[in-house]
Amino acid sequence: MPIDPDAAIEVTAFGWVPEGARGHVRDLRVRWALEEAGLPYRTRLLGGAIGGERSAEYYREQPWGQVPAYREGDLQLFECGAIVLHIAERSAALLPTDEIGRGRAITWLFAALNTMDVAVMAYLMAAVFNSDKPWSADAGATFGGFLDQRLARLGDWLGDREWLEDRFTVGDLMMVATLRGDSIVARAPANIADYIRRGEERAAFQLALAAQLADFSPEPV
Amino acid sequence: MPIDPDAAIEVTAFGWVPEGARGHVRDLRVRWALEEAGLPYRTRLLGGAIGGERSAEYYREQPWGQVPAYREGDLQLFECGAIVLHIAERSAALLPTDEIGRGRAITWLFAALNTMDVAVMAYLMAAVFNSDKPWSADAGATFGGFLDQRLARLGDWLGDREWLEDRFTVGDLMMVATLRGDSIVARAPANIADYIRRGEERAAFQLALAAQLADFSPEPV
Repeated sequence: MPIDPDAAIEVTAFGWVPEGARGHVRDLRVRWALEEAGLPYRTRLLGGAIGGERSAEYYREQPWGQVPAYREGDLQLFECGAIVLHIAERSAALLPTDEIGRGRAITWLFAALNTMDVAVMAYLMAAVFNSDKPWSADAGATFGGFLDQRLARLGDWLGDREWLEDRFTVGDLMMVATLRGDSIVARAPANIADYIRRGEERAAFQLALAAQLADFSPEPV
Repeated sequence: MPIDPDAAIEVTAFGWVPEGARGHVRDLRVRWALEEAGLPYRTRLLGGAIGGERSAEYYREQPWGQVPAYREGDLQLFECGAIVLHIAERSAALLPTDEIGRGRAITWLFAALNTMDVAVMAYLMAAVFNSDKPWSADAGATFGGFLDQRLARLGDWLGDREWLEDRFTVGDLMMVATLRGDSIVARAPANIADYIRRGEERAAFQLALAAQLADFSPEPV
């Protein structure tokens, strides 16, 4: 699904981020869901640094000044989870239509963004984002142990299945998106590392990744 | 809505937790949503400590061995966010029925459980849960600063409004539940502290809180 400047759906993204953040900014999750659902979209690129100040107008759209923010006619959403769920609700490719399948997929969507992301972000904040601090290694070891417990339980659940339930859903999309990246994959059980790779190998993911990377300027904007 | 042992909806909770965790275990969020929606429920109480080992059977129900897990006929859910959204989908008291109101409420539900809870939990893990570690104060100061930024932005959004949008929704329920507790409220802007108190003053919250406290045994079970 190529980006279409006339599409009804608009997603915000950054015009530039440092090398290490490319392929990881959260608009990728929304792009991926749109590719799975086959829905065209356009992007609106923001200038400035990831954590930088935004216009008062943009804070009305996205209260933390982050991406992605989503517009579709009069509907304005933020939070990648809410946007991806909104997209999934109109595509059986992401969300089963029966009540139980739907409920299970949404359960995993929240599991990714709450139970797992809390552990992932605490670890990254301690061990990676603050690696210049004297307490980083010790705090990172404690938080890494907490993350490892959650990864191990997730691996127990997954076992030798392909996806978290009996087919790929929006829950797998968000779980793979939450766990991918070398510093987490390196800690994951082998079946979870394989699961993340399966997610990244999907055609829709590859298209979304290419589209995010293509939107970055070579130099700060 | 008194607990009804014959109710179709079953929620798991702990039979005992230490004093400091009483009123904060996450089944409270589900009880609160059920009270707002006027739906009867029964509880199934688990023995053992909060982070303790569970039966293999319970891990199939709740992969991390936590509470709440939810059952309603053949539907089994976990993650307080997914359960509360499932409840909200059948009650206009929690979720507006127009597309825009519904989308905004769900956006705030995810904002509570991802953007805010990531900051809350990283801070609590550093400053409170690991307060015996030599790195706790320094890591807590850094993570507390990150949390303060997010609280300030939330306060800017709220301004002098009563709720995050034009009426109370499931998004307010989860935001209040995520931020309540002395160590977070003490850091919050005054309008956010007032907002949390307004949430806690709701009749449905008070009923849910009383029901959780009544389920705890005085001694470990």
